[in-house]
Amino acid sequence: MEFYEETIKSTSIYKGNVTEYIVEDVKLPNGEMSQREIVRHDGAAAVIPYTKSGDLVLVKQYRKAIDQISIELPAGLKDDSDHDGLETAKRELEEETGYNAKKWKFITSFYSTPGFTDEFLEIYEAEDLYFAANPLSLDEDETVEVITATYEEAWDYYRQGVLRDSKTVFALYYWKMKKLEMELGE
Amino acid sequence: MEFYEETIKSTSIYKGNVTEYIVEDVKLPNGEMSQREIVRHDGAAAVIPYTKSGDLVLVKQYRKAIDQISIELPAGLKDDSDHDGLETAKRELEEETGYNAKKWKFITSFYSTPGFTDEFLEIYEAEDLYFAANPLSLDEDETVEVITATYEEAWDYYRQGVLRDSKTVFALYYWKMKKLEMELGE
Repeated sequence: MEFYEETIKSTSIYKGNVTEYIVEDVKLPNGEMSQREIVRHDGAAAVIPYTKSGDLVLVKQYRKAIDQISIELPAGLKDDSDHDGLETAKRELEEETGYNAKKWKFITSFYSTPGFTDEFLEIYEAEDLYFAANPLSLDEDETVEVITATYEEAWDYYRQGVLRDSKTVFALYYWKMKKLEMELGE
Repeated sequence: MEFYEETIKSTSIYKGNVTEYIVEDVKLPNGEMSQREIVRHDGAAAVIPYTKSGDLVLVKQYRKAIDQISIELPAGLKDDSDHDGLETAKRELEEETGYNAKKWKFITSFYSTPGFTDEFLEIYEAEDLYFAANPLSLDEDETVEVITATYEEAWDYYRQGVLRDSKTVFALYYWKMKKLEMELGE
């Protein structure tokens, strides 16, 4: 089966600080023309950070796009100088929470929503957290509050609808899975 | 702590078929001005469809935004006439795969990436699939191939990097979790 859509014309509509909005005229496999809206994004990394007592560290912030307070994994955009997502993850954890971690592990990565954006997110798990001596400071336009949640508290945030972004919902199910694996002794 | 960002000016940059791109001048909690890029989206629903023999039904398609073939859960945009996400889910399953299902269950919902878009996705599980007598047809600009994958095959697609969008990665971990629960007799 033929899937490919050939770009006939690509128009950059707007280049912002985080995203670039592009409209492409494409030729469909059946020969017809159509348009695709594309949001270019540099990619991001997120952290599932567990304290020594096994709680999850989250950040609370206002998200203009959804006009509500959102409780999420610490996360942030890749810098041009980042060699890989782990570097981004370490910086964002320190900037947003003041924590460093002794143990890091790659968990998964995914395209947030490939129907219209190339945003790609890497997720790392961080264990054995400790406070950085002189933590990096937040970006100027960021205001976040650090929250430490038990397993039950995190699911309460989910049920209240205040924890509802893809990466953090993934993290809750991942946490549940880890607990099941421990029960099974895997 | 004060989080709210007041919109001083909202400018619609482009209104496409699926998204609207908006730039807002906002007043930060600290009184400074900043800009937020926002992609408005009507929302979507996705389906985790299991065949009678316990395999997962997926769709393969080309995604222009990431310029690659992507294997994903059947999913699609909400129509204005949809009363709820379940209606969207049922239609999209039938349009994209030709299947209906006897058993439906709400699993989760999340904002894909609330840093820049209000896209909200509902995920349903569908069991006891059967072929629709006269299935709904695809949208004109859609070309998809139906794939039926065992648990191991689905994780192979993940490892190959061809199954890597947030909703479908979520579904794989959810499937793994269900298997662990079954092992535990929960």
